[in-house]
Amino acid sequence: MRSAQHVDTGACERSDEALARAFTLLGKRWTGVVLGSLRPGPAGFRELARAIGGVSDSVLSDRLVELTESGLVSRTVDPGPPVAVSYALTEHGEALIPALTHLAEWAQSHLPPPSDSG
Amino acid sequence: MRSAQHVDTGACERSDEALARAFTLLGKRWTGVVLGSLRPGPAGFRELARAIGGVSDSVLSDRLVELTESGLVSRTVDPGPPVAVSYALTEHGEALIPALTHLAEWAQSHLPPPSDSG
Repeated sequence: MRSAQHVDTGACERSDEALARAFTLLGKRWTGVVLGSLRPGPAGFRELARAIGGVSDSVLSDRLVELTESGLVSRTVDPGPPVAVSYALTEHGEALIPALTHLAEWAQSHLPPPSDSG
Repeated sequence: MRSAQHVDTGACERSDEALARAFTLLGKRWTGVVLGSLRPGPAGFRELARAIGGVSDSVLSDRLVELTESGLVSRTVDPGPPVAVSYALTEHGEALIPALTHLAEWAQSHLPPPSDSG
């Protein structure tokens, strides 16, 4: 009943390389939550830390640096006074949200937590 | 213009845990290609190795064990003779394909390879 018996291996490999890049960036703990917390709009560091809860300042800072360097998040400094730094999703970051939601929904439905606690 | 100013942190964390599980499983090199190579239908080990190309037998074997243990791929032994082992996507594996395609498309459009070669 499958219509395609041919596998385009080249396309698969390019796709796999792209996936590997995505997983390297997104595979770290809190990255998904940080991106999710920026969905409502720009936020400052303390505001993000409060919204997320449970993340240490140093980890949140690391994740924001990685996301900024990857072009998914922008960092804007308002010289004030008082100086205010805010973070926001870029167009690239916004574009990721549906894919991430899709993958998270799949994992919640189809990839149960390891049952070593049950 | 955003309608939701409220972040459901609990839902984000559950989603992030699910994402972390997905990334742990899927973040390894070749996993995406192996899943993609099973899309046309069940295949034997050598058939998969040929279709993928460039993957070593031991890595392909490891990936298949991981995917089988995670319930994304089924392993069927036909006692023959000759004995034949075939691999196929399970319902859980089939359900992952659209999410994986979505993420790969995002990465190809929005996450360029590191430019240290350019």
